[in-house]
Amino acid sequence: MLNFEIKNGSVTSPKGFKAAGINCGLKEKNKDLALIKSDVPATVAALFTTNRVAAAPVLISRENVAKGMAQAIIINSGGANACTGQQGLADAREMTELTAHAAGIKPELVLVASTGVIGKYLPMNIIRKGIEEIVPRLASDGGTLAAEAIMTTDTHPKHFSVDFELDNQKCTIGAIAKGSGMISPNMATMIMAITTDVNIQARLLQEALKKSVDLSLNALTVDGDMSTNDSVFLLANGMSGNSLITRKDENYEKFLAALKAICLKMTRVIATDGEGATKLVTVTVENARNHEQANRAAKAIANSLLVKTAIFGMDPNWGRVISATGASGVDMNLEAVSIRFAGIKVAEKGAAIPFDFPAMKKALAEKEITIHISLGMGNHSATVYTCDLTYDYVKINAEYHT
Amino acid sequence: MLNFEIKNGSVTSPKGFKAAGINCGLKEKNKDLALIKSDVPATVAALFTTNRVAAAPVLISRENVAKGMAQAIIINSGGANACTGQQGLADAREMTELTAHAAGIKPELVLVASTGVIGKYLPMNIIRKGIEEIVPRLASDGGTLAAEAIMTTDTHPKHFSVDFELDNQKCTIGAIAKGSGMISPNMATMIMAITTDVNIQARLLQEALKKSVDLSLNALTVDGDMSTNDSVFLLANGMSGNSLITRKDENYEKFLAALKAICLKMTRVIATDGEGATKLVTVTVENARNHEQANRAAKAIANSLLVKTAIFGMDPNWGRVISATGASGVDMNLEAVSIRFAGIKVAEKGAAIPFDFPAMKKALAEKEITIHISLGMGNHSATVYTCDLTYDYVKINAEYHT
Repeated sequence: MLNFEIKNGSVTSPKGFKAAGINCGLKEKNKDLALIKSDVPATVAALFTTNRVAAAPVLISRENVAKGMAQAIIINSGGANACTGQQGLADAREMTELTAHAAGIKPELVLVASTGVIGKYLPMNIIRKGIEEIVPRLASDGGTLAAEAIMTTDTHPKHFSVDFELDNQKCTIGAIAKGSGMISPNMATMIMAITTDVNIQARLLQEALKKSVDLSLNALTVDGDMSTNDSVFLLANGMSGNSLITRKDENYEKFLAALKAICLKMTRVIATDGEGATKLVTVTVENARNHEQANRAAKAIANSLLVKTAIFGMDPNWGRVISATGASGVDMNLEAVSIRFAGIKVAEKGAAIPFDFPAMKKALAEKEITIHISLGMGNHSATVYTCDLTYDYVKINAEYHT
Repeated sequence: MLNFEIKNGSVTSPKGFKAAGINCGLKEKNKDLALIKSDVPATVAALFTTNRVAAAPVLISRENVAKGMAQAIIINSGGANACTGQQGLADAREMTELTAHAAGIKPELVLVASTGVIGKYLPMNIIRKGIEEIVPRLASDGGTLAAEAIMTTDTHPKHFSVDFELDNQKCTIGAIAKGSGMISPNMATMIMAITTDVNIQARLLQEALKKSVDLSLNALTVDGDMSTNDSVFLLANGMSGNSLITRKDENYEKFLAALKAICLKMTRVIATDGEGATKLVTVTVENARNHEQANRAAKAIANSLLVKTAIFGMDPNWGRVISATGASGVDMNLEAVSIRFAGIKVAEKGAAIPFDFPAMKKALAEKEITIHISLGMGNHSATVYTCDLTYDYVKINAEYHT
């Protein structure tokens, strides 16, 4: 496994990308409109929500991604443009057209995403003015401003980059994302824009994105609620100068490893900043019969309100872990089940064992908690990332009004 | 549909049942041991958790129920006796034997249930003394004491009865239940003991119980966490004097209707008293393609943290309702979807419509909130019962330590 240094870069860290983030008036004062643009048309890969109720921008972006190339991504917060019917589709399409016009590129090269309350029409007069205003602000250090503009209940902007070499050329992947709530593990689970200057075929780009997301964003759950607007975009403009990656060679593997690393970092940061979260929780199910069962059990544990409140209460309540596992219906050999909280074994052979209580108390006060359960059935494992469930989750979501 | 008056009776309301509830020392001062006994052996029906991790008392009771008759039920709170291996099984079996011995009946006629923290052995010395003590306390007005003794985080005991006539004989069904947390809709979802003096064949008794529970307790979710200890027992001792029900005649239908009525009442009361709940929420999905889809969508909405926090925040956030529905994967005709909160239409043809805001505000301040969503696909519907998600849910479950 290659190790990569994850830096606090962003979508403008790779060569040939500019970005901007502004307040255009959708929100009272925080930034609410982001634009990312490549200097040249880029190969594109994307993953979208599997929710049957997909928002208008998802439908429009899906159409444009299918055409194989993209050059810009326009994203607004402050309104999801979901459940907005024909008007919503027209509005999302207009956002791509206005951006294309102002930036001097073709409309089908523009992707669009929205985030915010479902079921309200976008105030297009504000967005039209906003797009006019944002295009001239595009700058090669604008990525972090774009990261700010896509935040909803996030407490901080999320932006990273990673550098590596292909064919002796410096290559970079940069990413911004918004996370926080309505996050459940099924396909892309939030809005994330990734840029890279790597030169790679479209088919391999899509495959690398799918693989990376399966191990990271798709293994992330905050509240089990799948959004209508989840979109992950990946633009590769080829400007680093490496020779085109056309097969799964060493260059592909290195690119894939870097992409996985940045997706995993983003996943952990999104979980840590889950709505109201005080702790990052990683749940690993081991010795399952197969991968599907390992994954199903890990998600069941990670989505259990009782497990999540126990972690908030700093209680190694392994009974709730084993109960959630049993409820998920996966095969388990009860007499061989063992469970660790924060690395400390609390149950063995399906029953309680004594453990070092002061050591546990100290471990559960940390910011990151691991839960391991071994099912004693086979040799498959899976890890899912989540956070604890706190008063603030309730506060945020009871007070975030339509 | 027959209407029944639900009274504040209990398991001792039907003829020939006695019960008791005491503190035996499992809890500091609240009652923690309940016993219900029929004067004569009774026909028995039961439903148990489908959790792969079933507690020891579930395994022992399942064995005894299979023998077809039962005469007593011993239930403790303050310890679930789940994940306790061979010792747990021996302890659960000993509870039936001690009860049988003290009450002068056969051990295989005793059912057992436990509720409390998972993964701890029962302090059998305390239980042994408790069983000695409780048997002489059996009384024909002891049902409400038994209801108190099975409470965990319930804020009040739950006990009801319903009277009706069969063959000009007065018949009664009585029930006690504990609810509150770790409640998810899959088979029986808590501990509930039902008694009746009706004279009915075992096969029809089981069928009536399954039908009643499917429409009530199995349509109840508080937090989506399925317990390891769920058990519903139904004892019919035949002492009312009606002629044995052997087929689905008028008498069977009347008994079934009464059983459904008491199960539904208990379901609504358990939802209302869900951990931290301030409101009873009934979610009805209409015009689904089939019953399975209606039920799946209703459960998805009822389990959505975002929907539940919105109700706590008194916000008619239909976007969260439609998003949860879409995430459940059921078929829906988006252009025909309509949604009502508290009877007031907020979305039609899949998009927002204006509504009377002051009327909505008033309606959402009530103790019972209805959510209706019509999927525009067919003519099947399903209703699920739940509650809102509040600060107190987090408080209760973060502080309820192992």
